[in-house]
Amino acid sequence: MPEPTPLDLPEGHPFGPHNLPYGVFSLPSSQGEPLRRVGVRLGDRVLDAGAAAHALGSPYASLLAQPTLNPLLAAGRQTWRDVRRALTAWVTVPAHREVVEPLLHPLSAVELHLPFEVADYVDFYASEHHATNLGRMFRPDGEALLPNWKHLPVGYHGRAGTVVVSGTDVIRPSGQRKAPSDAAPGFGPSAKLDIEAEVGFVVGTPSAMGSPVPLSSFRDHVFGLCLLNDWSARDIQPWEYVPLGPHVAKSFATSVSAWITPLEALESARVQLPARDVPVLPYLDDSDEDEPGGYDLRITVTLNGDVISEPPYATMYWSPAQMLAHMTVGGASLRTGDLYGSGTVSGPQTHQRGSLIELTWNGSTPLELPSGKRTFLEDGDEVTLTAWAPGPDGVRVGLGEVTGRVVSG
Amino acid sequence: MPEPTPLDLPEGHPFGPHNLPYGVFSLPSSQGEPLRRVGVRLGDRVLDAGAAAHALGSPYASLLAQPTLNPLLAAGRQTWRDVRRALTAWVTVPAHREVVEPLLHPLSAVELHLPFEVADYVDFYASEHHATNLGRMFRPDGEALLPNWKHLPVGYHGRAGTVVVSGTDVIRPSGQRKAPSDAAPGFGPSAKLDIEAEVGFVVGTPSAMGSPVPLSSFRDHVFGLCLLNDWSARDIQPWEYVPLGPHVAKSFATSVSAWITPLEALESARVQLPARDVPVLPYLDDSDEDEPGGYDLRITVTLNGDVISEPPYATMYWSPAQMLAHMTVGGASLRTGDLYGSGTVSGPQTHQRGSLIELTWNGSTPLELPSGKRTFLEDGDEVTLTAWAPGPDGVRVGLGEVTGRVVSG
Repeated sequence: MPEPTPLDLPEGHPFGPHNLPYGVFSLPSSQGEPLRRVGVRLGDRVLDAGAAAHALGSPYASLLAQPTLNPLLAAGRQTWRDVRRALTAWVTVPAHREVVEPLLHPLSAVELHLPFEVADYVDFYASEHHATNLGRMFRPDGEALLPNWKHLPVGYHGRAGTVVVSGTDVIRPSGQRKAPSDAAPGFGPSAKLDIEAEVGFVVGTPSAMGSPVPLSSFRDHVFGLCLLNDWSARDIQPWEYVPLGPHVAKSFATSVSAWITPLEALESARVQLPARDVPVLPYLDDSDEDEPGGYDLRITVTLNGDVISEPPYATMYWSPAQMLAHMTVGGASLRTGDLYGSGTVSGPQTHQRGSLIELTWNGSTPLELPSGKRTFLEDGDEVTLTAWAPGPDGVRVGLGEVTGRVVSG
Repeated sequence: MPEPTPLDLPEGHPFGPHNLPYGVFSLPSSQGEPLRRVGVRLGDRVLDAGAAAHALGSPYASLLAQPTLNPLLAAGRQTWRDVRRALTAWVTVPAHREVVEPLLHPLSAVELHLPFEVADYVDFYASEHHATNLGRMFRPDGEALLPNWKHLPVGYHGRAGTVVVSGTDVIRPSGQRKAPSDAAPGFGPSAKLDIEAEVGFVVGTPSAMGSPVPLSSFRDHVFGLCLLNDWSARDIQPWEYVPLGPHVAKSFATSVSAWITPLEALESARVQLPARDVPVLPYLDDSDEDEPGGYDLRITVTLNGDVISEPPYATMYWSPAQMLAHMTVGGASLRTGDLYGSGTVSGPQTHQRGSLIELTWNGSTPLELPSGKRTFLEDGDEVTLTAWAPGPDGVRVGLGEVTGRVVSG
């Protein structure tokens, strides 16, 4: 039997001391609103990070004894490194065990909250396979990719106020839809409610208006990442989206995982992007960057417990650094808490598609699942995204799951 | 000579006691960051509202002694009414004069700040004349209006983090652009920087996810309005905007006036919307509403002091209540501080167009101004929107101006 790690962590646990993602939790309270505070996940427990910092006389006690991650996010990259180094020591140095152990709460005993206050939310469309699939479906006689797609990471602003934490029910939206054959639009609950399996990037360090963020500054600004499900009403979008993009079809709910994985935990997961076949403008050209731009994140999507897809993030065409550079190239500033999504992650294989519209080819080839046949989501359906990435020494880095159940509107 | 009003306001001043818009100001400070506090404009002076409330023993002292309007916005319609009634008494009842007079600061002596923290920002496209003009320019062989335009108020999310207060310089954005004849996109400062003269609506009372806000609840949620200039790069947008809408072309800056006019000050400005020639779905049908949905706001746009346009808000096709109902119909919640813009206000006449792309027909017919010839904006150009609305007894209600100067990037 291997030596147990300090704090009795099973060897090789994907949420071991090599990971240490951040979240916000509360304990049940008999009086008033329970106190929210920063937590760090360790195995299947949550460390009360502010309390640990206080008990161990750390200078980060006030940064961590907060109801959101925003103060930590705003503190900048050197502090992110220093806090992570301190946390690693607290959970691995045996001398701290007596202090730390009582500050670890079982996941089952805590409530997890939206970990940060979302400033702006931008969603991209960075998977070539996803964009190609949608192009083939909706423009069967034209080029699958639109002319701009390989020149810039296409993206648009979404609704920050409806970003919700994993576990929040998703209320089926209603809206207008009109098939080309209909004389006038109709109204009702969406009959094509879908998921989009994505990765979200969380901005820490702000930037000034008029100062684009170059590729090389990506990790000075982006603190970490999360899993993200951008729920979408496929029947509302085609009618509303010309000429200014999606609105009601995508503004009702976006779910994020309760845990934000710091980029520092994902060093072993960095991979080269797929080969680029169209030259890009200098602000997006990462061929001279020292470090690879991609991340090898292996996502699994389950519907009512059945695996329906395994999208590989490593196949994305545009890197998170490129998305950030494009988002700011016109001079838009960044704020602490800005969130940007990758867009649906779809790989080249059919079982790697990150949305039901792709998996069922717009409903024409239903999924035959043990739990039943599905084209789009039915009331009561529960969708869960999980993921892991290669970590140091062959261990996995677990990403926090994002789950949501559809309820009728 | 007419009797002077209390506090020596000139008779009929557009910022008289019938108006009382709210903003946030600071006085110069010799030490540290100057204190921001809520101000109410009266003539050409600003009342320190929190200090007045405190001095007069009002229960609203803590609500008004704040660095943003958000607490007042969140307090709800009954409180908005009560605070307005109290303010009206403070500035009109002679007995209060001794207390109030010293708390009035000349506008020239204060700095005005962004009056509220913007939550989400949505921009609409609600002028039929504007949408028709753009359709004629870019789809000369097709229908000017797209098929959805008269069925729903088209809108999209913009960047909340780059909403700035009047007076803030606007840095010319750079970005990708590609003319159809170009083999590949180029990059550089926008050569078609433009304005969009709009009206912005400020949400006070929040709403829950999954609970659409009906037309009849518009004034329970929307506190007031402001002038808004949605700066736009016309050469960046055509290349980037398919299929998900504008991004870099419109995310670099949106200017709002420093003063938020409460809807209560605009009762005399309410007018019927233009006749509707296409029936709408029930959630947008205001034919049974008790009160007219439009506002008679007379906007003037100046460029370096020369009047270039006089857009009439009364000609808008979609009302602010309809935009709100559509924005929430899919279940999107509202937060205090949500801002939504009307889209460019353009009337039926050529001198009523609210953007340079319309006024110069995409640069083909330059404006000949005393200050020079113009197609799009040049560095150093200053654009100012002002407006007024009919008030009680023939007096005007002034809206706060929004001004911005273009500087090179």
